[in-house]
Amino acid sequence: MQKCVLVLLFVGLFGFAQTKDEKQIKSIFDTALTEPQGYEWLNYLSNQIGGRLSGSVQAQQAVDYTKKELDKLGLDRVWLQPVMVPKWVRGGTEFAFFETKPGHTTNVPICALGGSIATPRGGIKAPVIEVNGIEELAQLGESNIKGKIVFYNKPMDPTLISTFSAYSGCVDQRYSGAAEAVKYGAIGVIVRSMNLRLDDYPHTGSMAYGDLAVDQRIPAAAISTKAAELLSTTLKLNPNTLFFFNQSCQQLDDVESYNVIGEIRGSTYPNEIMTVGGHLDSWDLGDGSHDDGAGCVQSMEVLRLLAATGHKPKRTIRVVLFMNEENGLRGGKAYAKMAQEKKENHVFALESDAGGFTPRGFSFDCSDANFEKVQAWKKLFEPYLIHMFVKGGSGADIGPLKHPDMVLAGLRPDSQRYFDHHHAENDTFEHVNQRELQLGAATMASLVYLFDEYGVVPPRSLKD
Amino acid sequence: MQKCVLVLLFVGLFGFAQTKDEKQIKSIFDTALTEPQGYEWLNYLSNQIGGRLSGSVQAQQAVDYTKKELDKLGLDRVWLQPVMVPKWVRGGTEFAFFETKPGHTTNVPICALGGSIATPRGGIKAPVIEVNGIEELAQLGESNIKGKIVFYNKPMDPTLISTFSAYSGCVDQRYSGAAEAVKYGAIGVIVRSMNLRLDDYPHTGSMAYGDLAVDQRIPAAAISTKAAELLSTTLKLNPNTLFFFNQSCQQLDDVESYNVIGEIRGSTYPNEIMTVGGHLDSWDLGDGSHDDGAGCVQSMEVLRLLAATGHKPKRTIRVVLFMNEENGLRGGKAYAKMAQEKKENHVFALESDAGGFTPRGFSFDCSDANFEKVQAWKKLFEPYLIHMFVKGGSGADIGPLKHPDMVLAGLRPDSQRYFDHHHAENDTFEHVNQRELQLGAATMASLVYLFDEYGVVPPRSLKD
Repeated sequence: MQKCVLVLLFVGLFGFAQTKDEKQIKSIFDTALTEPQGYEWLNYLSNQIGGRLSGSVQAQQAVDYTKKELDKLGLDRVWLQPVMVPKWVRGGTEFAFFETKPGHTTNVPICALGGSIATPRGGIKAPVIEVNGIEELAQLGESNIKGKIVFYNKPMDPTLISTFSAYSGCVDQRYSGAAEAVKYGAIGVIVRSMNLRLDDYPHTGSMAYGDLAVDQRIPAAAISTKAAELLSTTLKLNPNTLFFFNQSCQQLDDVESYNVIGEIRGSTYPNEIMTVGGHLDSWDLGDGSHDDGAGCVQSMEVLRLLAATGHKPKRTIRVVLFMNEENGLRGGKAYAKMAQEKKENHVFALESDAGGFTPRGFSFDCSDANFEKVQAWKKLFEPYLIHMFVKGGSGADIGPLKHPDMVLAGLRPDSQRYFDHHHAENDTFEHVNQRELQLGAATMASLVYLFDEYGVVPPRSLKD
Repeated sequence: MQKCVLVLLFVGLFGFAQTKDEKQIKSIFDTALTEPQGYEWLNYLSNQIGGRLSGSVQAQQAVDYTKKELDKLGLDRVWLQPVMVPKWVRGGTEFAFFETKPGHTTNVPICALGGSIATPRGGIKAPVIEVNGIEELAQLGESNIKGKIVFYNKPMDPTLISTFSAYSGCVDQRYSGAAEAVKYGAIGVIVRSMNLRLDDYPHTGSMAYGDLAVDQRIPAAAISTKAAELLSTTLKLNPNTLFFFNQSCQQLDDVESYNVIGEIRGSTYPNEIMTVGGHLDSWDLGDGSHDDGAGCVQSMEVLRLLAATGHKPKRTIRVVLFMNEENGLRGGKAYAKMAQEKKENHVFALESDAGGFTPRGFSFDCSDANFEKVQAWKKLFEPYLIHMFVKGGSGADIGPLKHPDMVLAGLRPDSQRYFDHHHAENDTFEHVNQRELQLGAATMASLVYLFDEYGVVPPRSLKD
């Protein structure tokens, strides 16, 4: 495009009260875009520290670094909340191939799923049975499955515009696939990566054995989408194809880690607490830039932007960088437990954990009255091309805080590219765009500003 | 409001006809996402052909390839419209440095602007005067400028949410900077790249000398944003810094090229023509994937998707792959001239020339009556997260077709990353996401479907 002029006219149809809000929100966006800080924080987290799996040295480095950075912001208080977290380690690089006949092997990219056990030393090799999701196990029955490796190959549904809906539609095979396959005598599990593209990256993610005894557990790994297609085709041509994989991951004892918390104390309603956060831990394959370095630095930006634009919060605003969202949610649970024990009055929580892409809006888990309130603010966001205000989930880490009077919200960035990178080696810094990241932070800060200014319905400060 | 009431209201307002439209649009999106073709076409254009500057071998290869692919689609007619285009060639790689004192030089990345003359053989070296846009030339006057290289360093405004608005705000220094600087005796021009990021890519783009005699012309180049910052800082510390650059580009005689055109003849109103297009030429530094390979393959997809979903157009629908948008607009002008000469009745035209990113909506250049019509269709696009329906520009290539009764529209994808790649070496295939590209094609096809089904206001078939 050469000289295209796109002029957007925004007609000011707002009353006096909203003019103040319009100004504040414009100031937040301008500051986010002209004096960005989040991208530099992310650069450090991603490129100086890297992947931050719970219990790792990198996770501890991330705790130390973000605490130090929050200390610099001049908040009223910055502290660490101790929390015991699981420690799972990958060990050596995984290795896999399929074998159509002796000596005819094709290597394929796999990675162990988080929480999986290792294969026996030297790996396992067995026939493969492909299924299109957990629901097919029962039809096939033990006679078709016993002694085999179950290959879960249900793809994400490409017709769903929200890629998170597509993820929800098949992630059960990753999370519970091993525990379910064991019931039919499977000896291992290979799961198609949760990825809408065809490429060579295996995508890890958490899995669990439920109440399965330790000696009954079977190893589980993800296979890249391209290799999944190849394996599927190969099995159609040669059902006797064998699959080999070797992985040496292990679950160690829990270790102490921390949620990193900073707060600005409210001037008028200090006991009404508003939490904004992301999770500091990440998977180990990439550097966790989108999942969820982006959400962490955006949450830190919220407090910085409110201060930088001269907003003095009426309510207490906290940034919480949760530990261990990926494989345990211990940070989120510990934070909610602490809130309950201290009888803290949490009125609002917002999480960013869907990537650092162009923000599109929010989903809300709240009462109809509060949702109506939000709808009335839509016009304020239109100049920033934020249109999506829907009911729905918020975020895993803030979920445990939930109570009926509270507003829980999740930032909803554009989701089209998210699963290209999610939990994979290519979740890296160069795939985050600074403007998109900063626009997300400004969008979050604007919502926090509005809820700080006008409170939630019912006004808990009057009720209590 | 209860959900069932909402549903009743919806059905009551829109009735039976809308259900058909909802189904057709869903079918278009599903087909675009499950049987994508555009990304494969783009792969060929980008990776087998590459940058396609007007008059180049690659431009001709792109004509041949896209004609062949349109032939495969079973359209009613596919043809080439001859058009004479300018042929500008870059020559050898450009070279530049600044020199703070003899022997102390720093190399910087530059590229010649399209249409510029070469430097004298061996390059030029001269003092530099930095200006913040063309408007500063008059203040400085000839005494400060004569014999120097003018360094235009006005950045794109990062606070504008539409990056195209930011582009419009400073692209005059690239397009007219040389012609203006000559008036004050400048001997060369260096322009900050039109890029919101700080990086090392110089971004080319068209420039023109207006009615300046050939012997008065001065060479013009773009410098990367990082180097622009460095040069600016250096000039503050040492105003006597010299700048050297060498480029060997040249403007050759015009050559013949083609617009590539395919059409499905309308069943009911064959004389009402609807054009959808992008431009086939690109700059030479990258492979032109976003600008505008994406727009071309999306436009081809529109016709394919309508056919694949069983829609038989009432009106004649044409795909036009315009030649020479970047440095001449000859294809767009020739197409409009042909339409006028043949007294064709063009009722609608849509261009995609803003990158292959997630679609956000359209801008419309049309009457209020037609814009109201579009507004009534907004609900149909909401499930696909298409919210932006604004008045504004459409596209450079379809601009010459404009007349008052016509609807001109431009696809508006997310613009945040566009100028990271625009006219630079990194406008390449791997920066296009297949889903985003296909969603854009489906969004375009849906709008074309609606205008085909319901026509424009006033209905020209009745008027004529």
